[in-house]
Amino acid sequence: MPERTDVPSLPLAAGPQASFDAMWADLQPVGLEASTGGYRRFAWTGEDHDLREWFAAECARRGLDLTTDRMGNQWAWWGDPDAAAAAGRPGVAVGSHLDSVPDGGAFDGPLGVVSGLVAIDVLRENGFAPSRPIGVVNFVDEEGARFGVACAGSRVITGAMSADRARSLTDADGVSMAEALRSAGRDPSALGRDEETLRRIGCFVELHVEQGRGLIDLGHPVAVGTDIWPHGRWRFDFPGAANHAGTTRLEDRQDAMLGYADTVLAARSVAAQRGCVATIGKVVVEPGGVNAIPSHVTGWLDSRGPVESDVRAVVAELSSRAETYGATVTEESWTTTTRFDQTLAVRLRDTLGGEVPMLGTGAGHDAGVLANHGVPTAMLFVRNPTGISHSPEEFAEAEDCHRGVAALARVVEDLAR
Amino acid sequence: MPERTDVPSLPLAAGPQASFDAMWADLQPVGLEASTGGYRRFAWTGEDHDLREWFAAECARRGLDLTTDRMGNQWAWWGDPDAAAAAGRPGVAVGSHLDSVPDGGAFDGPLGVVSGLVAIDVLRENGFAPSRPIGVVNFVDEEGARFGVACAGSRVITGAMSADRARSLTDADGVSMAEALRSAGRDPSALGRDEETLRRIGCFVELHVEQGRGLIDLGHPVAVGTDIWPHGRWRFDFPGAANHAGTTRLEDRQDAMLGYADTVLAARSVAAQRGCVATIGKVVVEPGGVNAIPSHVTGWLDSRGPVESDVRAVVAELSSRAETYGATVTEESWTTTTRFDQTLAVRLRDTLGGEVPMLGTGAGHDAGVLANHGVPTAMLFVRNPTGISHSPEEFAEAEDCHRGVAALARVVEDLAR
Repeated sequence: MPERTDVPSLPLAAGPQASFDAMWADLQPVGLEASTGGYRRFAWTGEDHDLREWFAAECARRGLDLTTDRMGNQWAWWGDPDAAAAAGRPGVAVGSHLDSVPDGGAFDGPLGVVSGLVAIDVLRENGFAPSRPIGVVNFVDEEGARFGVACAGSRVITGAMSADRARSLTDADGVSMAEALRSAGRDPSALGRDEETLRRIGCFVELHVEQGRGLIDLGHPVAVGTDIWPHGRWRFDFPGAANHAGTTRLEDRQDAMLGYADTVLAARSVAAQRGCVATIGKVVVEPGGVNAIPSHVTGWLDSRGPVESDVRAVVAELSSRAETYGATVTEESWTTTTRFDQTLAVRLRDTLGGEVPMLGTGAGHDAGVLANHGVPTAMLFVRNPTGISHSPEEFAEAEDCHRGVAALARVVEDLAR
Repeated sequence: MPERTDVPSLPLAAGPQASFDAMWADLQPVGLEASTGGYRRFAWTGEDHDLREWFAAECARRGLDLTTDRMGNQWAWWGDPDAAAAAGRPGVAVGSHLDSVPDGGAFDGPLGVVSGLVAIDVLRENGFAPSRPIGVVNFVDEEGARFGVACAGSRVITGAMSADRARSLTDADGVSMAEALRSAGRDPSALGRDEETLRRIGCFVELHVEQGRGLIDLGHPVAVGTDIWPHGRWRFDFPGAANHAGTTRLEDRQDAMLGYADTVLAARSVAAQRGCVATIGKVVVEPGGVNAIPSHVTGWLDSRGPVESDVRAVVAELSSRAETYGATVTEESWTTTTRFDQTLAVRLRDTLGGEVPMLGTGAGHDAGVLANHGVPTAMLFVRNPTGISHSPEEFAEAEDCHRGVAALARVVEDLAR
């Protein structure tokens, strides 16, 4: 199919384009792991701190008012969001996150934050005078790479995850989120649903690199998001008994790795039967010695699909099977089908010329959490020429990124007019 | 079967028994992980340093001459081993190691070191005047828990592992053994076969807790070792392609975990068919995120059995199968059947009254490395009432440990007379 470049039709001017490229270059080294070429930007670490400082500096450069909500998400406002909310005209928020999965790509997250800041540059260069405040957010801990729960930043401020649960989550070293927050100079007792922050958000638009091949097939650089598949994470704990790998007869063993391996293979076949996806990408083995029989194996299942009952059936079938090995299965997160605000989605499409495709996705986002908690929310996806994401190979062409910014600026201009 | 306590018939006197119990109490807290009840005593770490200091202090307390060989193994001599070697009457060495597998038990290693020291106490209390030097060794890095190669201490000084290979081994954090040695104040350029140390050893007897159920079935507290099964470690590297777990269709995936899981299950069934044991107790997944498809999985196979060709067949069959997933298989270590010195074994048995059982084992030991490199070597096993080893639950009754010391003292008295 020939490429259609009519949407968005306006090019990005030289100034905002230079602003985009400069910010992209600034972010390039932060958390880059030389051995893999991927990023390791985990919540409340030194890398995260550097990214937050960078965001604050970019907001200061633009004269935006930076506030930090009860969870530590950073919000930068052009205009007074409290006065506007009081007047019944709450703000237009854009943005995304700066953290990454282990050895993730450069685009998942940062593209939305950088595009939000450049969109403001575009509007100002155009002399636009907003009648609503415009905000850019950096959500903390979107990937859940450190504490295991994705979108922790938006889940906490919407109340989707309780403060107690968030505080008690632990990382691989046994450090709780409460301890991590304290180490980062934050007050974990402040966690909880943040009405003051939510009141300011009239609508939210998250721009994100596409994490599949939809836009390649359609030949478009930008799409409007329609929905997020139902998705969740489940922890499977397989019991065993540690013993010597050389001296314990096979029939005397209780090897936790066997149930785990069987579940990995079953996850693939059951998901295929149900038209879903299922992945076990993280495993922890105790004691973890080459010559010790595993006494405990924990595997994390990620499963998603277009139909909620099918995803539930995949998890139920795998749980039953794992339980025959004595495993316990714990649901760590679950998000039902998320439908973005249809009125808002159509408005974005019409603003962008009416030809822009509408796409669903299997990936979770903070936008989905906000959409499920009463915030009119939309997404814009930027074409990913390989479809690869959560990988050092994740990529988007600079030209498509610039088109994404132009589309976002046009959408914000329309919403804040 | 009724228990036979005639071997050894002599009880351990009060002094040496108190000495044993005091040393056991000293070692109890070192490297103990409260959350598991197991020990984490890895080569060239702070815990290892503490254990080495403890050993040096116990040797000093006894007036033994402590030397450290080219690899860092600690040798404590009663008598002058160089003069004795020059006179054609080299020493009688005993001992074992103080390091552990991850979350290992208290006995595997320390029992042999402590018993060696107490055996000297016994001989001195009896007024024994040795005509050969008697040495106690603390071999470093027997378990290979940190750098992946078991018996590194004895392998390097016998030349079974080259100095270059040893120096270049890396731990999970990418620290090489050479760097670890330097951090511990040692000179990695000194590594290599150590003729000066080997010349001093006329024979070596390693006492060790049994790591199976042989002595329970036989109703004996102590056995003489006859042989070690052929055994080895192989690293299986499965390739994949990192991508998003939610947005990548199953048919577009290259998930490294699938080949790994299939190999885990095959290892069990193939080993059972061949009368061997096979274990995959350690795995490393990249990138290791819950929502990222694994781009690389490394699993370590430990396989052993009474018949060498059967072990080789297990590994060949698993390698062929893994290669269909694009895996590469690397032999990290291989030890053929080790037969301890038969003359020495019979002499030990006769010294202990002739009724003591003779047992083989599936566990590797520094004694096996020395035996394969020209040192007349024997082992004594102390009963393990559960058969469990490489686990916090590893155990031996105090009474059996004391009997083990008495047996070792009697054997050393005979050999050094």
